[in-house]
Order: sequence, then structure tokens, then C-alpha cells
Amino acid sequence: MTETSSLGNLWAVVPAGGAGTRLWPLSRARSPKFLHDLSGSGRTLLQATGDRLTPLVGDRLLVVTGAAHQDAVRGQLEDLPDDHVVAEPSPRDSMAAIGLAAAMIEREDPEAVLGSFAADHVIADAEAFRECVREAADVARTGLLVTIGIEPARPSTAFGYIHLGDRLPGFPTAHAVAEFVEKPDAERARQYVASGEYRWNAGMFVARASVLLDLLAVEHPDLAAGLREIAAEPDRLEEIWPGLTKIAIDHAVAEPAAAAGKVAVVPGGFGWEDIGDFAALADLLPDAGAGVKVLGDAGRVLSRDSSGLVVTDTGRTVALLGVEDVVVVDTGDALLVTTTAHAQDVKAVVEAVKSSGRPDLT
Amino acid sequence: MTETSSLGNLWAVVPAGGAGTRLWPLSRARSPKFLHDLSGSGRTLLQATGDRLTPLVGDRLLVVTGAAHQDAVRGQLEDLPDDHVVAEPSPRDSMAAIGLAAAMIEREDPEAVLGSFAADHVIADAEAFRECVREAADVARTGLLVTIGIEPARPSTAFGYIHLGDRLPGFPTAHAVAEFVEKPDAERARQYVASGEYRWNAGMFVARASVLLDLLAVEHPDLAAGLREIAAEPDRLEEIWPGLTKIAIDHAVAEPAAAAGKVAVVPGGFGWEDIGDFAALADLLPDAGAGVKVLGDAGRVLSRDSSGLVVTDTGRTVALLGVEDVVVVDTGDALLVTTTAHAQDVKAVVEAVKSSGRPDLT
Repeated sequence: MTETSSLGNLWAVVPAGGAGTRLWPLSRARSPKFLHDLSGSGRTLLQATGDRLTPLVGDRLLVVTGAAHQDAVRGQLEDLPDDHVVAEPSPRDSMAAIGLAAAMIEREDPEAVLGSFAADHVIADAEAFRECVREAADVARTGLLVTIGIEPARPSTAFGYIHLGDRLPGFPTAHAVAEFVEKPDAERARQYVASGEYRWNAGMFVARASVLLDLLAVEHPDLAAGLREIAAEPDRLEEIWPGLTKIAIDHAVAEPAAAAGKVAVVPGGFGWEDIGDFAALADLLPDAGAGVKVLGDAGRVLSRDSSGLVVTDTGRTVALLGVEDVVVVDTGDALLVTTTAHAQDVKAVVEAVKSSGRPDLT
Repeated sequence: MTETSSLGNLWAVVPAGGAGTRLWPLSRARSPKFLHDLSGSGRTLLQATGDRLTPLVGDRLLVVTGAAHQDAVRGQLEDLPDDHVVAEPSPRDSMAAIGLAAAMIEREDPEAVLGSFAADHVIADAEAFRECVREAADVARTGLLVTIGIEPARPSTAFGYIHLGDRLPGFPTAHAVAEFVEKPDAERARQYVASGEYRWNAGMFVARASVLLDLLAVEHPDLAAGLREIAAEPDRLEEIWPGLTKIAIDHAVAEPAAAAGKVAVVPGGFGWEDIGDFAALADLLPDAGAGVKVLGDAGRVLSRDSSGLVVTDTGRTVALLGVEDVVVVDTGDALLVTTTAHAQDVKAVVEAVKSSGRPDLT
């Protein structure tokens, strides 16, 4: 690949965590959403993430996941060397996960640039995505922390936003980051999108591994030191890991660095979605006819005067009659019936299932 | 039992047929609704029918059912002699089914009185029901065809009605039947119920076996003769049965006899229901809490901001979130999601399932 020469020191880090509780009972703690094919493409979200990144990084890709999921991850990414799947002994939030990978990469190549991309996002135009990452890597080589700012498809209140600052001279599209802002209310979201100055924060970060860890060391020196110690002496993982600070990468590094003028953003318009709930899943899937979207074998779904979403992996016939905007999720041991309007509340059902004495179903 | 002396020649005939298509996928052609426990009582509708009749008739009870269901019927009515389950070689409507039983009973006891009661009705007050049957049997001994007229619980358009004629002297509550009337429209149903002169026709008939067959012989002499031939020579069942006229008992006997002034009615107020669809089933079941009725293990049904009915026999957990008046029927190979308002249209779904290449599910 011609790009390999310029991107020869680019690594991808894929944190694969999070249960996807609002996608219960499809997604479970023991089988989280990144292990599922949610687009009907035949590839799971994790596999699609690998497919998208491999043209950029080859096998310079590290997946950081829970110990419980490492075998499933290795099984799904057959071509990845086994030691490129890093198992966290316990969840310690995104900074520890990405930071551990950064420290491992830094030891491998002190000049290396890494890009961190979640395992459970959906991207429509993979080549446009890679073009953004290439520019972000070029910017990152100047020593900045770089994020990718997603062109907002709607005034969503489900994501944080990135306020664009001045254009960065010498790069095709990059800007400085004026500020990261939290998830807005509906009115503020409308203002953000109308202004044209805001992008969705999808949690994608590109930086030299050493820059990321040095930025971390400013605010959380113990955490940065702990991660570098593990990378130097992998046998000490179990000993050091439980004492590491639990913090998200946004709070640990991105926000303080933005305040210090050290963060850039490359705007991206490549059809990004975080399938956070069944309403988002329904939006994403193609219409199977008769107004009902189906994830699974559409030939076994019969609908009449109905609309919504059926997710089925049981081999059963599913018949809908006179139900509008319904969500039916049909799995072997649990069935959910709700509506797209209640998609965000599925979390509460999972809590109820847990308290009902069936934590095994969650 | 003190009643045995006066009712010693009373027989019960239980036609057990009809797939209960509007209760799909709970009720199937191969497992029709009378074989199911629809009240959550622990007894199937057929068993409850037997329980209700045994105090009146002991084992003078004949069940007439399809050949495909005879083993299931015998399995559910363990105390009934095997030859009291009569298998129809093919469905030939209610007159042939009840008439065959009548002919068999007539040979056993020429003075016998029979009462015919469907296998899939629900009756709340069994003793009040039996009291009606006792009076009906007394009236039947005078040579009349007697029906039981159900006190209407509401102006239903789903049932035919019986127009009461004059009181019959010498009996506690019996009337002549002025007329049987077909299922009315909503306005007419309201008028019927408001007048106090109409009762629901539940298809219950009580008569001497010989009176029933003689009435039949007036309008359909070949049918009456054929049934009596089979009773005389049971080996000829397969030969004669296919040539018998297919007709409902109402048209074959009850309506002509009423026109001739030969039918009486005993009014009954014992909480009768024909569970014709899931809306009727939902009405019948006790509230399990949280607004959702459950047929099955209510401990595995979780609901939040929901109402309606869950029928489940799979052992799966069923979670409802924000769905009103929903009907969820969860079986091993088919799942139905609809609403109580669409309960009558379930038949159309069954047709669609059949045409979809899965007649095995219907």
C-alpha cells in the first residue's frame, strides 16, 4: 500500500468494552454489542471496525477488552496476532484501557502515532473515514492531540460536541479545538448544529503515544507512570492494574489539553452512528418491506398493519398485527417488547430483570 | 348422589372440535384450544368441562372429537372409559357429531336424555350451571328440545340470541323459545339486551336422544338414518360417515323445531364465556399486577408502563416496556405480537403464516 510508507508508524487502538445495556436482550454483559452484527452485513461491529482500520495499519492494531471477552475477540479477529488482544483484568474506564495500549506502543516505537476508535461504532463510508484519520495522523505528528469531529446528522442530545476553533494552517481541513462541551439539551443542540461551528464528539483520538501519556502525566502522573510500568514489565499487570485511577480519556486528557490549546480536530463526514438503542438500530437498518425493519431472518417475520423493528435470532416465526413503532427482540432466553419511543428506557428493564433474580439474563 | 336417581338417564355429549384460530399461536389445528388451560386453573378447558359435568352424569359422558385428537382427549380425561371418546373420521359439522352420540345413547337407553355442551367454554359458577341443566333435563323429559339461554353480560355481536317466548307452566324458570336470531349488529344487540327478552345462544341443547333424532329425521331423514345405522353397526362408521350431510345442529334441528313450537329455553346466569380471542382471554384472567394479565408463569413477566396480555409457555423471560393493550403470545416455534383491539384479526395472520410456507405452524 502506498500509504504504508507515510503511515508506517500509525497504530490503531480499539477499546472494546461496554455492555450496550439499552440493546438488551440482544446485547448482554457476557455478549456485548461489539460482538454482534447489528447492521445485517454479516460482520460484527468489532469485525467491521477491524476491516475499516486494517488498510491503514495492517496488524498494528491492539484491541483492549475485558478478560471475559478476550477469547470471543480473538475468535472474531482471526488474522490478528493473539498478543494484539490485550485483556484488562477489570474495567478501569477508557483512560486506563487506551493508556495501556499507548504505553505498549510507545515501547515498541517511541515515534509511533496511535488512533483510538471504539469497537461498536458504525461508519458508512470507510474510505472517507480513513482519509480523516490520515490527516489526523499528520497533525498528530506535530505533537498535538487530535480528535475527529463528526458532522452532526441531527441536533442530537445523546452526544457531546466539539466547538471548532481557528483553522490549522498547513492541513487540508483541521481546526484547533476551542472547547469540548457536554451533552446539550435540545435547544442548545439545535443552536450548535445551526451555527455550523460544532461537531459530534465520537471519542476518537489520534496522538503520538508519548504525547498522549505525557499529557496524562501532567494531570494524573500516577496513572501515566503505572501504565508505563505495566508496559515495561507486563508480568506486573495484575499487581498494578487495580490501583489505577478510573477516569475517562475525555476528562483525563482531552479537556485539560483543549484548555491548554493542545488539541486539534479534523472534521469528518463519513456517516457515523453509535447504535446506542433500538431506535437507532431501526433507523440504520434497510426497510425489509411492509414497514418493519428486521435484524435476522426477514423471511420468518410476518407483519400486517405494523411498523417498527424485529430482532430475532431464535429461528421462530414472528407475527406482528396492528402494532405501530414496536420493537420486538426475540432471543433464546428473553423476549423484549417495547416501542422505538421507549428505546432509551430499556436500561431500566435490565435493572428490573437483574432485581427479579435473573442477573444471568443481563 | 341424591340427584343420580332423577338424573340416572341423563347423558352428557361434549363435541370437542374447532381449532380456535383466533387464539393462534397458542391454539393450533394439531392442539386446539379445548386441550389448553386458558384460565390458569391448572385444568384444560376440556378437563374443566368434564369436571363440571361429572357430578350430573358420572361417566355417562361421550366426547366426540377429531381422530387426530382422540389420544390427547383420552389422556386428559383419564377416568373416562376409552369407548366414551368417539373419533370422527373427518369433520362433518356439529349435527353429525352430536347426532352420532345421540344415536349411540339411544341404543344404550331408549329413554335417555342428553345434554350437549362444547368442550371449550368457561363457566364461573358450575353449580348454578348444573341447576340449569337439571331443569332443562326435566323439561326435555316432556318431549321438548331444550336450550340454555345465557344471561347476556354485554350487548355482544359475537353470539346469536334466543328470543324468550311465554313461561312454561310447571317449571321454575323455563320459557318457550319464540325464535333463534343470528348474530346481530351493535345497535340491534343493544336493543336485545335492553329489552330483557333475549339470551345468548351458547349452543347448549338438552333433549331425549330419540326426540333429537326424530326432529332431525323430519328435515334430514338421510342424516338421521345414517347416524342410527352407525350406532347399530359401528363397523360401518368409515363407510357411512363421509356421505353424511354437513350441517350445524342449530340449522338442522333447533331453528325448524323452534318454528314448530317445540323448543324451550332455561335461562342461565352462571358466568359463561366463550374464549373466542385474546381480548376475551385477557378479560377473563385475573390481574397479575402492573396492569398486565399473564397466562403462564407470571414470575417471568416483567412489565413497566404497559398493559395487556402475555401468554407464555416457553420458560423465557418476557419484558414489556411502554406498550399499551398489547397481546404477546410466546410459544416455542412462533411469537405473536398484537393488541387487544386486533384480537379478531388474528385469523388473518394464521392465513398469512400458512401461505408463507409454514402450514406446520398453524
